[in-house]
Amino acid sequence: MKKKIEQVKILLDALPYIKKYAGDIFVIKYGGSAQIDPILKAQVAEDILLMQLVGIKVVIVHGGGNKISSFLNKLHIKSTFVDGLRVTDAETMEIVEMVLSGNVNKEITTLINQHGGNALGISGKDANLLMATPIDFEKYGYVGEIRLVNVEVVKKILDEKLIPVIAPIASDNGTNSSLGYNINADFAASQIAIALKARKIIFMTDTPGVMDNSKNIISTLNLQEAEALKKSGVISGGMIPKVDACMEAIKGGVLKSHIIDGRVEHAILLETFTSEGVGTVIKGISKIKKGA
Amino acid sequence: MKKKIEQVKILLDALPYIKKYAGDIFVIKYGGSAQIDPILKAQVAEDILLMQLVGIKVVIVHGGGNKISSFLNKLHIKSTFVDGLRVTDAETMEIVEMVLSGNVNKEITTLINQHGGNALGISGKDANLLMATPIDFEKYGYVGEIRLVNVEVVKKILDEKLIPVIAPIASDNGTNSSLGYNINADFAASQIAIALKARKIIFMTDTPGVMDNSKNIISTLNLQEAEALKKSGVISGGMIPKVDACMEAIKGGVLKSHIIDGRVEHAILLETFTSEGVGTVIKGISKIKKGA
Amino acid sequence: MKKKIEQVKILLDALPYIKKYAGDIFVIKYGGSAQIDPILKAQVAEDILLMQLVGIKVVIVHGGGNKISSFLNKLHIKSTFVDGLRVTDAETMEIVEMVLSGNVNKEITTLINQHGGNALGISGKDANLLMATPIDFEKYGYVGEIRLVNVEVVKKILDEKLIPVIAPIASDNGTNSSLGYNINADFAASQIAIALKARKIIFMTDTPGVMDNSKNIISTLNLQEAEALKKSGVISGGMIPKVDACMEAIKGGVLKSHIIDGRVEHAILLETFTSEGVGTVIKGISKIKKGA
Amino acid sequence: MKKKIEQVKILLDALPYIKKYAGDIFVIKYGGSAQIDPILKAQVAEDILLMQLVGIKVVIVHGGGNKISSFLNKLHIKSTFVDGLRVTDAETMEIVEMVLSGNVNKEITTLINQHGGNALGISGKDANLLMATPIDFEKYGYVGEIRLVNVEVVKKILDEKLIPVIAPIASDNGTNSSLGYNINADFAASQIAIALKARKIIFMTDTPGVMDNSKNIISTLNLQEAEALKKSGVISGGMIPKVDACMEAIKGGVLKSHIIDGRVEHAILLETFTSEGVGTVIKGISKIKKGA
Amino acid sequence: MKKKIEQVKILLDALPYIKKYAGDIFVIKYGGSAQIDPILKAQVAEDILLMQLVGIKVVIVHGGGNKISSFLNKLHIKSTFVDGLRVTDAETMEIVEMVLSGNVNKEITTLINQHGGNALGISGKDANLLMATPIDFEKYGYVGEIRLVNVEVVKKILDEKLIPVIAPIASDNGTNSSLGYNINADFAASQIAIALKARKIIFMTDTPGVMDNSKNIISTLNLQEAEALKKSGVISGGMIPKVDACMEAIKGGVLKSHIIDGRVEHAILLETFTSEGVGTVIKGISKIKKGA
Amino acid sequence: MKKKIEQVKILLDALPYIKKYAGDIFVIKYGGSAQIDPILKAQVAEDILLMQLVGIKVVIVHGGGNKISSFLNKLHIKSTFVDGLRVTDAETMEIVEMVLSGNVNKEITTLINQHGGNALGISGKDANLLMATPIDFEKYGYVGEIRLVNVEVVKKILDEKLIPVIAPIASDNGTNSSLGYNINADFAASQIAIALKARKIIFMTDTPGVMDNSKNIISTLNLQEAEALKKSGVISGGMIPKVDACMEAIKGGVLKSHIIDGRVEHAILLETFTSEGVGTVIKGISKIKKGA
Repeated sequence: MKKKIEQVKILLDALPYIKKYAGDIFVIKYGGSAQIDPILKAQVAEDILLMQLVGIKVVIVHGGGNKISSFLNKLHIKSTFVDGLRVTDAETMEIVEMVLSGNVNKEITTLINQHGGNALGISGKDANLLMATPIDFEKYGYVGEIRLVNVEVVKKILDEKLIPVIAPIASDNGTNSSLGYNINADFAASQIAIALKARKIIFMTDTPGVMDNSKNIISTLNLQEAEALKKSGVISGGMIPKVDACMEAIKGGVLKSHIIDGRVEHAILLETFTSEGVGTVIKGISKIKKGA
Repeated sequence: MKKKIEQVKILLDALPYIKKYAGDIFVIKYGGSAQIDPILKAQVAEDILLMQLVGIKVVIVHGGGNKISSFLNKLHIKSTFVDGLRVTDAETMEIVEMVLSGNVNKEITTLINQHGGNALGISGKDANLLMATPIDFEKYGYVGEIRLVNVEVVKKILDEKLIPVIAPIASDNGTNSSLGYNINADFAASQIAIALKARKIIFMTDTPGVMDNSKNIISTLNLQEAEALKKSGVISGGMIPKVDACMEAIKGGVLKSHIIDGRVEHAILLETFTSEGVGTVIKGISKIKKGA
Repeated sequence: MKKKIEQVKILLDALPYIKKYAGDIFVIKYGGSAQIDPILKAQVAEDILLMQLVGIKVVIVHGGGNKISSFLNKLHIKSTFVDGLRVTDAETMEIVEMVLSGNVNKEITTLINQHGGNALGISGKDANLLMATPIDFEKYGYVGEIRLVNVEVVKKILDEKLIPVIAPIASDNGTNSSLGYNINADFAASQIAIALKARKIIFMTDTPGVMDNSKNIISTLNLQEAEALKKSGVISGGMIPKVDACMEAIKGGVLKSHIIDGRVEHAILLETFTSEGVGTVIKGISKIKKGA
Repeated sequence: MKKKIEQVKILLDALPYIKKYAGDIFVIKYGGSAQIDPILKAQVAEDILLMQLVGIKVVIVHGGGNKISSFLNKLHIKSTFVDGLRVTDAETMEIVEMVLSGNVNKEITTLINQHGGNALGISGKDANLLMATPIDFEKYGYVGEIRLVNVEVVKKILDEKLIPVIAPIASDNGTNSSLGYNINADFAASQIAIALKARKIIFMTDTPGVMDNSKNIISTLNLQEAEALKKSGVISGGMIPKVDACMEAIKGGVLKSHIIDGRVEHAILLETFTSEGVGTVIKGISKIKKGA
Repeated sequence: MKKKIEQVKILLDALPYIKKYAGDIFVIKYGGSAQIDPILKAQVAEDILLMQLVGIKVVIVHGGGNKISSFLNKLHIKSTFVDGLRVTDAETMEIVEMVLSGNVNKEITTLINQHGGNALGISGKDANLLMATPIDFEKYGYVGEIRLVNVEVVKKILDEKLIPVIAPIASDNGTNSSLGYNINADFAASQIAIALKARKIIFMTDTPGVMDNSKNIISTLNLQEAEALKKSGVISGGMIPKVDACMEAIKGGVLKSHIIDGRVEHAILLETFTSEGVGTVIKGISKIKKGA
Repeated sequence: MKKKIEQVKILLDALPYIKKYAGDIFVIKYGGSAQIDPILKAQVAEDILLMQLVGIKVVIVHGGGNKISSFLNKLHIKSTFVDGLRVTDAETMEIVEMVLSGNVNKEITTLINQHGGNALGISGKDANLLMATPIDFEKYGYVGEIRLVNVEVVKKILDEKLIPVIAPIASDNGTNSSLGYNINADFAASQIAIALKARKIIFMTDTPGVMDNSKNIISTLNLQEAEALKKSGVISGGMIPKVDACMEAIKGGVLKSHIIDGRVEHAILLETFTSEGVGTVIKGISKIKKGA
């Protein structure tokens, strides 16, 4: 019995967090190992379900980088990368969409549904959720940047108590092309979070978070500090676009952006329901009253 | 971090229970030590809040035996008991109501509200919730039995996301007397649970549950078994009316009646969210499909 | 038949008043002889019912001064008064609450319900309706002044076509004390009327109204005139706090405050549905277009 | 003041009636002197307004016999009557409709509106409210009997808190003729009352009610008694169709049919809100529990 | 089959118009030959039905000039015209109303209903839709100008999926006279269109539209141009009040006013669903973005 | 102008069909040339849009046979067919889903959206819309038959005025496999139509319809006739499963099943809005009153 009482007390430790977040929207950029490792995948599904049951409205945005590459390989299509972006010709774009919308998206949807949830997988093309134009068609082909977010469809899905799972493909803003555009999943998540007035956006990565020069995790950053660390080169490489997506969300009104380590078991719940900060949180300046 | 992960896993252990009970009504007969001991009181408040946050609709019915006696003592009013019932003359009735509706009821309401909840304390007189007639006016005076339960007001309070706290005082069914009647709190709870089509009724007592001849707790009883144990004298004394109230609820359609030990920390949560059965559960026959 | 036709004509005389007040909120501070005399009590119940049936939303706020004193006497607890306020220690506070919430409140609720209405009795503690801090704890103990009025619960009760009956007990604004505070019923009524944007507040007293130096009732006063009469001493003694509560309501946006003679039969209806002004009305300055 | 108190008491005498009828539908067949005499007209408007304000849903059906005749005279169109029915050729039908829909109907609507009500005048042609076929075209021409009542439009008008005023003109059930049919107003009222599940239908006449052989008013009749009096010839002449319309309504489920004397001031209110029965009430057999 | 495919293509040509107008309000001033010729009448009914089925909310306002004159003739009542207005004494007013509300209004209602629609005929007196004062009582008698449009009743009728048909009779704004006033139907339509925030107002006339000096139809005019043409005398005679009503509507916020030739088959549909402009459209200046 | 008037008359010819189908659900099994030929594709999009604008609720179910085969070829994956079913191993299943959910589904969605519609593409996995078990895993692998249709999500999408586009992939009913099953699109359409209580199901094929022995199209068949033609071999080959899907829908309550020639321009509109029957309609026995 004693052990059970301990358990119940732990449940109660989550009470203040449950109260704080009831009714709020959290956007989760799902990716990395947490999307590959079967144990981590099952844990993510459980985490999302618990969040929904205690009243948080969860929105999943996913990428699918590895799967795209391995599939292109199978088809002997080679990818060139310019400025870190995959040059995406029409043939590649078709594969990108099939992998994201037809494979990864449905896999996540099924994962959640088989754990007892009720997920609905869409892409940014559905109900014109994401409208984009090419960044530089000559240079990158069908790589787009978002011009318009029609977020009503996501709100309706949430209102129906369904969990939206979103593939980062956008329609052509000018309806010239029906192929659509490949969108960076981090920025898609960030734009959707802004349009939904989300409370939090959580980026699941394969890093422990933003680290200082001594390789210690920096647990909290405000916009100025993040900017400074970018300038000084402490934030570098692949962390830069993550931090940029975080900052974009904050500037757009999201209260907190989190870069968490998806390799840690139940990392999302740890961040959400315990005093244990996992990874790095980026937030605005301290004027904000309503804490998060 | 390891400890935190353990915590999160414990949270997830509650997931199936949270799913099972979401949207259901639980009636809690609050009483005994859990109503007196300050630590237990605070724990009950937390338990109720957590239940509400994860989607259970909680209804509190309370007694107030000890406080009534001590207050009657202060006023030098002596109580006679016949067949275990307090003979209640008009003067006593006035005190009974003041203690129940004006002291105990508001104390519980304030307890919940000060823990962050939103409770509304009423008595069975409000909106004619409980209408009664005297059991035997000559013998017991203003001790009533319920004739009518107008449960709409409780549903409305629940719909408003408030926690109803109910004092077991009833109006006169014939509007002859404005004094009203003193109602046994266990049976008031049972009647209200039936009228609300509650999923569970939980009686908080100062006993470990129903015990067999060897003083071991009987964890599960169906109606026939309970009846048999009453006949054979295994269930005796003060446990008889508790078991009767349990059986009445089950016969009226409540899925499960629980007699739990309110002296155990977080006994309600233990019963609701863990595999640990505390005390005794009484249920109908096994035909029922939808488990509880 | 002639007599009946006369009756019907009288009914029709009320037509313009019924039209004017349909859908408006009236707060009635119930007190004095009208709360004690059995005939007056029955008449008040009838008056309230009629008002509700013709579309006025009635809110009752009550005191209970006499009953508190007599009950304290029974318990041999002596009251000291400082500046007209009962010095309220913890023991006294407990009795005050029991009498107000557990006796007077339920008596009024039952009175209305037995006349065919549907009343719901609450105190300021319920759903945190009234939050207060002590005026001067050292001097007066648990005598509070209102800091916050959470009037939503009253609106919800009105929306459900129930008549709210409110005892003037407040919760501690800082959740330090669970005892709560004793609030002056006139000011509780005034604050609730403001928060509800009531059209009228009616104070039932045992006086004919505000009187001039020649002992004639002053039928109408605006804020300036009331202020002037206070300065000149024409308004004095026990009438001062009544007039202050009236003025507070007007300043807070209530259209008219009435001090009426509760000893007159059906005084509320007389005031509401006939051209006969009973007692004194206090109102703002004449700029107001929508008459009352 | 004393007089005013008397007035208020009279108001309260209406309380049980107001409670009884709140939310019920009353159909009033408006006609006779009450439709001609300016004082009676104003009183009818007041009566209807009061009924609406205390929660009765009033539906007016009117005839216009006298006006039709006088207008036909002006145009030198002669009317023949067969079996008490005006033989209605196309030219006559056009005039009948103009007088009923374009004159009488709008006069009543304006009368109510100028007394502060909100009336909407329609005919049975609007939204296909009344669909009819000729009784015997060869014999009577455009005199119709109702085949279908599409009462939804009346319910919608009532839901909008408007008072429907209905001219007894029906559309052709087979859409052959656009002229429509002249319908007996008493039976139109009766059919509409049945379709609306009205509580009462009130026929305003220029008679004191049904009289026995000694010229005394019979205050109450059940269906069998009414039938018997018709057979015995006590009910005769112009009273027969009135009584028939009453009986039709009762058989169709209306609780009570009243034949009242519209020449009496405020006859409708007398009947509705006082213990004074005016005229004759016809009802079903005494099994009915819910009194009217 | 080929012919049918052509038909379907024509259906699709209407697609952009259907999309553009879905949910918008169109006010149609019905009059002229289209109100007299049986074939044109049937076509108007079909046109209105189709418009309603594809989502346009149609409001009909009608006059009835010819019928009024012919009816006055029958009664040997002579009309004098001053400044183009019929001098309307009380006797004439009564006939005007009977013809408009009791004959023309119901004829249109029946016409639509017999084609499968659901029309509800009212006059400006109903629910106080139009409130007016005399233009110059001494000179013109009961000829009014609109002071107040209570358009709620029309919105409610539209919400119920009914087609409102409105006779241009107004109540007296001061409730002095129950006769009401005769209102110019063009201006009644214009005022109602403004109050409803209609997208279009369409005047059905017996002219091809506004014509220039060479007798060619001017297909488009803005406010300035219309004003100029009036000054220069190109717009003259009976066309002036039509153009004035058009301009009034535009100034009040209606997007486009149309003067169309009601003698052309299906003129309304031609104007609404094809690229063929029939008659003249008057609109504001070109700043307007949302085309019509 | 004459031509335009002809056009408008054609529009009006559609009036009875628009009235008949307003608010009804049509399921369209989209496939064959109409899914490949760019001109036909655009026409289908227009047809669907028009149907939606005039009040029909359209649901699209699609297959994608050709694209699946060509994609499997690119990957050098060979397909074996047993009993006309593609033997679907895990690798093939992954490709099938990617092509259907990630390519064809989004292509149709985009097609409709770029024509001005608002489509939402999902698969049977989303919100557990289609739950299946393998037909015979040993023989056919991941080819499933539907066990459960959770059609609520489709109703919600329709309620939001979105056009659902559904890929025929089902979840595993027992949650054993996350791969899901490949479902025959015709039967998926049929099951969805039944669950939605659709009025019509329309199968777009590359045949003129069901043909008799003389190669003439049979325009109408009832269930018995269809059964007989199957037995006699007149219906044979690839037409058998189409007719079976048609009959299944009819037996499940759909009013009419259509096999139409998708190669004909605007075939859907022809069938829906003209008297021209295209292809074959299969219906139940003639008892049905409400025609379709």
